Amino acid sequence: MTIKISIDCMGGDFGPAVTVAAAVSFASREPDVAFLLVGNEEILNAELKKYSYLNHPRMTVVHASETVEMDDPIEIALRRKKDSSMRIALMKVKEGEAQACVSAGNTGALMAVSRYVLKTMSGVDRPAICSILPNQKKLPTYMLDLGANVDCEPLHLHQFAIMGSALVSALEGKARPSIGLLNVGEEDIKGNDVVKKTAQLLRADHERGLLNFYGNVEGNDIFKGTTDIVVCDGFVGNVTLKAVEGLGRFVKTTMTDAFKSNPLNILGALIARGALKAISKTMNPSNYNGGSLLGLRGVVIKSHGSADKYSYEWAIQRAFDAVKNDVLSRIATSLAELMPASEETSNSDLNQNTPQENA
Amino acid sequence: MTIKISIDCMGGDFGPAVTVAAAVSFASREPDVAFLLVGNEEILNAELKKYSYLNHPRMTVVHASETVEMDDPIEIALRRKKDSSMRIALMKVKEGEAQACVSAGNTGALMAVSRYVLKTMSGVDRPAICSILPNQKKLPTYMLDLGANVDCEPLHLHQFAIMGSALVSALEGKARPSIGLLNVGEEDIKGNDVVKKTAQLLRADHERGLLNFYGNVEGNDIFKGTTDIVVCDGFVGNVTLKAVEGLGRFVKTTMTDAFKSNPLNILGALIARGALKAISKTMNPSNYNGGSLLGLRGVVIKSHGSADKYSYEWAIQRAFDAVKNDVLSRIATSLAELMPASEETSNSDLNQNTPQENA
Repeated sequence: MTIKISIDCMGGDFGPAVTVAAAVSFASREPDVAFLLVGNEEILNAELKKYSYLNHPRMTVVHASETVEMDDPIEIALRRKKDSSMRIALMKVKEGEAQACVSAGNTGALMAVSRYVLKTMSGVDRPAICSILPNQKKLPTYMLDLGANVDCEPLHLHQFAIMGSALVSALEGKARPSIGLLNVGEEDIKGNDVVKKTAQLLRADHERGLLNFYGNVEGNDIFKGTTDIVVCDGFVGNVTLKAVEGLGRFVKTTMTDAFKSNPLNILGALIARGALKAISKTMNPSNYNGGSLLGLRGVVIKSHGSADKYSYEWAIQRAFDAVKNDVLSRIATSLAELMPASEETSNSDLNQNTPQENA
Repeated sequence: MTIKISIDCMGGDFGPAVTVAAAVSFASREPDVAFLLVGNEEILNAELKKYSYLNHPRMTVVHASETVEMDDPIEIALRRKKDSSMRIALMKVKEGEAQACVSAGNTGALMAVSRYVLKTMSGVDRPAICSILPNQKKLPTYMLDLGANVDCEPLHLHQFAIMGSALVSALEGKARPSIGLLNVGEEDIKGNDVVKKTAQLLRADHERGLLNFYGNVEGNDIFKGTTDIVVCDGFVGNVTLKAVEGLGRFVKTTMTDAFKSNPLNILGALIARGALKAISKTMNPSNYNGGSLLGLRGVVIKSHGSADKYSYEWAIQRAFDAVKNDVLSRIATSLAELMPASEETSNSDLNQNTPQENA
């Protein structure tokens, strides 16, 4: 069965030069994918022509006259640019013409427009961003929220845990993935009020056999792989993610400088190039590109704005896998099973709210 | 002038085996230091004997009959163990017999006992923990709070900025070190209410020429070295610090595994051992050991619990430097200059509060 993915081709730092190239490359190795390429028709056709993919049966160009810029305020993206490539790409999911959307545009705008166009799932107050980080067990650690919600209540963190659990269950084939609550210590008495109350909600689910709640985890547990999922609010998640990305770049620079510092080190690096390649493969942030916007009535994947072709292909892969593994209905089922009736909020009410300021 | 430092010798995962060894090593290379070694007299004398430092004129053993264990609740450390090595070491600072105290004990207990014994400075509601991280400019980034306060109001973050600025000014000889406020984006509209209100306070100080406020910074700016100081609440700071420590360990394991994976890689690593040493030197967390407990009426340095001798010596170095550079009076002067009268809280009131739960 062909999976159709709409691409916001104008989003990201490099626009069509990266997004079209990545889509072409993905289509060339994956026969079961078709793309709706959304953006300036002329530019997109020119890009497709470069790769001899113009009028390719699995590549459909959809014109959009506007582009959401990386520094556009949410208001502009939401209310002014009604013919943006971002919005049209999301509309294609809404209308059922595509099963997933990928965008490297401004995160806040993407979340707001996604909420507006697709609406949130029943039982979800606020969608969250979930990405993977590598860990010492050579498995992915799924972490959420990574920046959609800078102020969270326990009920939001609870929903993130439910959605994360359903996602990992679908993608990794684990019946009961383990959930850690990010905190400043392992003991129950540690942390602020929001975290303590969230732990109570998760512990209750665990006791009822509905979720596999491990308990509190600390920052280092992300990379130890202590749990499959790490739940936190979007402020903590965003700061942590960017800090580890920053350290990653710092390590890379330090290594490059050291191995180039004199002929002996250059020679050593040449001889041990297999080791350096293996390190680079494990640590390459491109392999972890593609954050899922969870809690929407549609699959939306956010790519890093600075993604190159290789990195953007990973974001497309996440979209493809999410559709293939039926992530959406898995999450909806979990929410229906797990959310206490009292906590569930009417979806129609929620979608009338002004979207939150996002990271 | 001799600087006297009291050491909580029983604190940390390894106790006197590390703490006494580190003090001896430090004393052997620094003639201007003298130590009060606090703990079980018999054990400490036995350790000193190993290094032929028994009855050394700059090594005084002070007996303490109790030890605060790593998992002791704050209540126990504070109210039960009145003859603990931690408390006696702090008392020596209070009584003027030592000018600084170093402990690798339980952070929460150390903060609580320090507050109780030494009291907070005028103008400080809550002491904070400040440590350094390396950055790409090959300079230290000072970051606070790293876990003493899991819930902060803008006035607390404001005080952290003032204390951090005075500390960096004293230690790095910078007249106006730059201050970044950790956030999910650079723009003023980003972040939660606490961060936005803190930015207003810092901007006002900046406009009056009192502090050098750069604005918001993101997680990656810690390692870019965008600002000299990064201010955040203790929840975010603690999680971020532990996450980057975790990634550091993960990188180290990945590198070790890769360079040992086959004879060619082993050979390459041998030839480029200079490069590997340089990388290890830059990245070695031991070089950054020693967090300052700022805002107390005395210099207190917290070492990592798992510190080895080399790492613990760095914590002693921080204590030595803080006294030598008169950090305490620099902070007191800055607070007096910068804290608006309305914000200043009576010190006696504060010290009657039950200590916060700490990380």
